[in-house]
Amino acid sequence: MERVVRHFQEELETLKERLLAMGGLAEERVREAVRALAERETEHIEAILTGDEPINDLHIEIDARCFKLLALHQPMAADLRTIVAAVKINTDLERVGDLAVNIAEAGKRYVQHPPVKPLIDIPRMGDIAQLMLRDALDAFVRGDVALAEAVLAEDDRLDALKTQIFRELLTFMLQDATTIEPALDLILVSRHLERIGDHATNVAEDVIFMVSARDVRHQQVSESFDPGGR
Amino acid sequence: MERVVRHFQEELETLKERLLAMGGLAEERVREAVRALAERETEHIEAILTGDEPINDLHIEIDARCFKLLALHQPMAADLRTIVAAVKINTDLERVGDLAVNIAEAGKRYVQHPPVKPLIDIPRMGDIAQLMLRDALDAFVRGDVALAEAVLAEDDRLDALKTQIFRELLTFMLQDATTIEPALDLILVSRHLERIGDHATNVAEDVIFMVSARDVRHQQVSESFDPGGR
Repeated sequence: MERVVRHFQEELETLKERLLAMGGLAEERVREAVRALAERETEHIEAILTGDEPINDLHIEIDARCFKLLALHQPMAADLRTIVAAVKINTDLERVGDLAVNIAEAGKRYVQHPPVKPLIDIPRMGDIAQLMLRDALDAFVRGDVALAEAVLAEDDRLDALKTQIFRELLTFMLQDATTIEPALDLILVSRHLERIGDHATNVAEDVIFMVSARDVRHQQVSESFDPGGR
Repeated sequence: MERVVRHFQEELETLKERLLAMGGLAEERVREAVRALAERETEHIEAILTGDEPINDLHIEIDARCFKLLALHQPMAADLRTIVAAVKINTDLERVGDLAVNIAEAGKRYVQHPPVKPLIDIPRMGDIAQLMLRDALDAFVRGDVALAEAVLAEDDRLDALKTQIFRELLTFMLQDATTIEPALDLILVSRHLERIGDHATNVAEDVIFMVSARDVRHQQVSESFDPGGR
């Protein structure tokens, strides 16, 4: 029995390591997609469009690990919450990988037009989204609720930047019709980045539930749960 | 033991019923959001903006049911796959509810401008997305792989309509700057509907895995899995 328990804990550690590896990959692809767009590097954009195999392979591998842990070890309480959180986080990270591809798709169209403006706020949104993702995964591995709650707070900054970008680009579009197409792609990119922040938020909420068995989702609407926090 | 097994099967049936109820709610809210936008019903749009409590409550309830089933009954094989599928489907349905709110947000802005054009393709996208969602959930409840595969095939129609809508609206925007703002909101709505189709696709993929333990995700990129299908 002692040996089974040790084996389970080792497998759980490996699961966390693999999720961290996947998070690192997803984060890198977001960073590269935004950089390639901002610096108009066509070849680099192509590389992102075709390079999602490692993330997809990890997605399948991690899902299989979760099933194996649930089936062979029948974990309870905190361990069960950790594995179910891993199933959900795995899905979120895979979507982040897809969003990096979406950013590259918009980037591919964007570089076919003259630049609308120097890109400052979009790289800034990219930095925030990446940091949220990294912090949310660190919070998962360490079981750090305070860090997870800090991630939730960051989401407002991302939303504010998205609104600001939209207003600025709308002004360009209204003044000069030749900016409409490229500005549309920048608006889409800002929304993809906002969604990456949403996925980081999901991860952070899963971490809080995993550690404290406290459900912080839908706090604004669900009266049956402790309000406050976020 | 006989009694425990019967109790487990009853709980599993209840879980499926609750997921169906949630799917029905999500579907209805998408339909109402698109209808309110197309018919410019401001009051109805407001009702959708504030009415996501029932879905959010179901989201938390279903998650709790899944945990309870995993913890108390330690299910194996097909039952385990069903419960993990339910966890994922629950997440997808909650996001569909959020997207209905997003459609209503765009609708609220849209009706403040004169209509860009009579809306035909957007309600059509709404119909397809809803049908995909309903079929995916029926496939889940019945364990119907053929129906789940039919859902995957529908996604291409949604993508084609989205592209067509984009091209048409871009033409309007380039010809008449006063259409830029409302056209932008229609483009966003078409993307929200596309994402609802993506969630239905996720559900369908989960059903296929649940029934056949066959992973159909990432078939285009992952050589280690049987190609073809989708």
